[in-house]
Amino acid sequence: MSGKKVKVGLVGFGVVGSGVAKIILDSSKEIQAKTGISLELACVVDKDITTKRSVELPDGILTDNVDALLNDESIDIAVELVGGTTFAKDLQIKMLNSGKDVVTANKALLAKFGNEIYKAAKENKKSVAFEASCAGGIPIILAIRNGLTANNITGLYGIVNGTCNYILSSMTNDGVDFSDALSQAQKKGFAEADPTLDINGHDSAHKLVIMASFAFGCEIQMEDIHIEGIEGISIDDIKYASEMGYVLKLLAIGEHDEDGKISLRVHPSFIQKDDALARVNGSFNAISLFGDSVGHTMYYGRGAGMMPTASAVVADIIDVAMGNSQTTFDCLKLDSRSEAVKRIVPVDQLVSRFYIKLMAVDKPGVFAKYGEILGKHDISISGALQHEAADPNGDTVPVVILTHLSQQSKIYAAIEEIQQLDIISGQPVCIRIVDIPEDKD
Amino acid sequence: MSGKKVKVGLVGFGVVGSGVAKIILDSSKEIQAKTGISLELACVVDKDITTKRSVELPDGILTDNVDALLNDESIDIAVELVGGTTFAKDLQIKMLNSGKDVVTANKALLAKFGNEIYKAAKENKKSVAFEASCAGGIPIILAIRNGLTANNITGLYGIVNGTCNYILSSMTNDGVDFSDALSQAQKKGFAEADPTLDINGHDSAHKLVIMASFAFGCEIQMEDIHIEGIEGISIDDIKYASEMGYVLKLLAIGEHDEDGKISLRVHPSFIQKDDALARVNGSFNAISLFGDSVGHTMYYGRGAGMMPTASAVVADIIDVAMGNSQTTFDCLKLDSRSEAVKRIVPVDQLVSRFYIKLMAVDKPGVFAKYGEILGKHDISISGALQHEAADPNGDTVPVVILTHLSQQSKIYAAIEEIQQLDIISGQPVCIRIVDIPEDKD
Repeated sequence: MSGKKVKVGLVGFGVVGSGVAKIILDSSKEIQAKTGISLELACVVDKDITTKRSVELPDGILTDNVDALLNDESIDIAVELVGGTTFAKDLQIKMLNSGKDVVTANKALLAKFGNEIYKAAKENKKSVAFEASCAGGIPIILAIRNGLTANNITGLYGIVNGTCNYILSSMTNDGVDFSDALSQAQKKGFAEADPTLDINGHDSAHKLVIMASFAFGCEIQMEDIHIEGIEGISIDDIKYASEMGYVLKLLAIGEHDEDGKISLRVHPSFIQKDDALARVNGSFNAISLFGDSVGHTMYYGRGAGMMPTASAVVADIIDVAMGNSQTTFDCLKLDSRSEAVKRIVPVDQLVSRFYIKLMAVDKPGVFAKYGEILGKHDISISGALQHEAADPNGDTVPVVILTHLSQQSKIYAAIEEIQQLDIISGQPVCIRIVDIPEDKD
Repeated sequence: MSGKKVKVGLVGFGVVGSGVAKIILDSSKEIQAKTGISLELACVVDKDITTKRSVELPDGILTDNVDALLNDESIDIAVELVGGTTFAKDLQIKMLNSGKDVVTANKALLAKFGNEIYKAAKENKKSVAFEASCAGGIPIILAIRNGLTANNITGLYGIVNGTCNYILSSMTNDGVDFSDALSQAQKKGFAEADPTLDINGHDSAHKLVIMASFAFGCEIQMEDIHIEGIEGISIDDIKYASEMGYVLKLLAIGEHDEDGKISLRVHPSFIQKDDALARVNGSFNAISLFGDSVGHTMYYGRGAGMMPTASAVVADIIDVAMGNSQTTFDCLKLDSRSEAVKRIVPVDQLVSRFYIKLMAVDKPGVFAKYGEILGKHDISISGALQHEAADPNGDTVPVVILTHLSQQSKIYAAIEEIQQLDIISGQPVCIRIVDIPEDKD
């Protein structure tokens, strides 16, 4: 299709869809000058064809009939921006079966049914492009899948959910609690009315499935990922850990050790204050990738929003039009599922450092009691913090313990035992400390 | 060539060449598993075929006869890692004429003779891939040329020379002077025995030519770039500016304003301490790119060295083997030279903020005198710093002035006039302050 006029059809005329239409309508001249590709927006499909959007479409291209797009043989590239995993799945397969390449931002669909979609693409000798599915405007799929192909990726650490990062940044920098930070994020448009999928870590996990499958070259599924969200995070834990040099981020983590074992997880993570990811604030995203040849690389930018996401969608449209999407798609192999499963480490075998907070009775001998239990479970303490009681008449004081590397199952066993002590009040808090590798001169 | 076995020939068995050979020999299985491309190192050419390298080649592939590579029709991809612009230019053209795609890290050659090379590639229906020419292991060409194609790039700010960044970081963080920092860099292998091209800014300019031509979609040549190096930088200026909140970096800058005018320059730049680029230390590189849709994106990693550069070379080899290099190469259009020249702004029309240091006699009325001259030239002062004289018997004290935005020609005229004052001793120092755009929530 090089140098050719390429016709684009779009399903889903929401925020991102409007952004995509805007770029194609406003910048097609510049895009043609740079890339030789002339894009024409031929058809926009949405069930709502009356509400005014932020972009003015040419007459006659907006329709509520998806068949108008599917049956138009002159349309080369079909963009699915509907979201969800039922109608959208059916739609993408129809798009491929009707001989169109597909461009999408639908991370949930690819994370859950990627293989069915990819299979339909292969059968139709078409491709699926999905740069916009991960980290919005950051070209992270391109970096992993094309830029670092010479490397065995040893680690991937990503802040890939802008809503969570906005909330955690507000809690850390402005000292507001979780619910206030969430309302603020909703007011400013950085969180949806129903933010469940963001806050419970599932959105980050969807993106990790996609990124990790290309980073590690094997089929990854949602159940391979251990997922914890940020719902239970208290401002106190952010403050105490900050005093000890740590910042809380929701990280999507993929690690590949020398034995070929892969650890995949999304959870709140205390990272060193001077790590590059610790300085990523607000709704921004960033991904640190470590390769055996390249060392540390990092990619930073806006992970969501109308125009940043549209930027990635249109880059994919151009990539498809150039022919790169097809050539890459044809070449890439993903190991069989059975191979991948063999290599994925269950989370209870995870070796990590931990932040543990206990509410302990302020009496002599208390430290010795839980110290003994930790010792019995082979857990060694790397740091501890106990402030003097703010209220001298209060019953309990918070005790914070940072551990050296320990197997997670041992930590959990120790905590269960500590919880039985009559000197401990309430539920202990346990958050992983993630030591992102350092790569310095 | 998808899914095929691809034969690679390499000219230049130095540091990077050894790294490329190492990756192909050690990781070809993993690369095939991920990308479907099976790489075979078929021929390595170097004039020195006796010195032992850090990698062991298979028998019979090392030769000092470049024709062995050129005449071997089974070799698909030829890698030029010789460097320089005479033999290498001839060699690349011969490689293309003999029907091979070319992969290179040779920024000087592409910056000076890119058009001849690209023309030879087009004539032979082959491609040239050069990810390794800019910022080592960071996939920055991919990001600019493929990842952000939907954007009009408004600004590019890059730390793209590891030697200079190592020197400036040492001066800033360890308080050592320029010559000590340079010797340390040489001892640690971060500076060449002859570091001229790095330190005088020309290496950064070579990379800017390549990056800017794709960012702005027009032919750029070395003479379009205003170049200043870091040779004259004194530790005092780094210290004074630091007190006022600035860090010194050698930046490669490309800016594209709303009228379509392009400013291209490499020079020492004071940037805000809290800018992301200010925290890039040692031999690392980073590039901040601003697009009209995507906003701010940043790319960080190792800009040089055996394995990071080899990582980029091998990624290019795989990209060529997949077919992407050819499809991209076929599509990309660069505006004609005459168009580009019309749009490039001469540096004396540059509007910037400036750091000015004068050594002034410590007497009443001195501040008024140069203040008057600055005012006469329409230059307004945004900050000033004059420490009390360390030596009360000393004749002069350093006076530091930060200006608001001013046209460069006015600043230079004012400084020339100030220099004539009998209260001023020595040569004033004048360094640009670069306000990298902010992109926040």
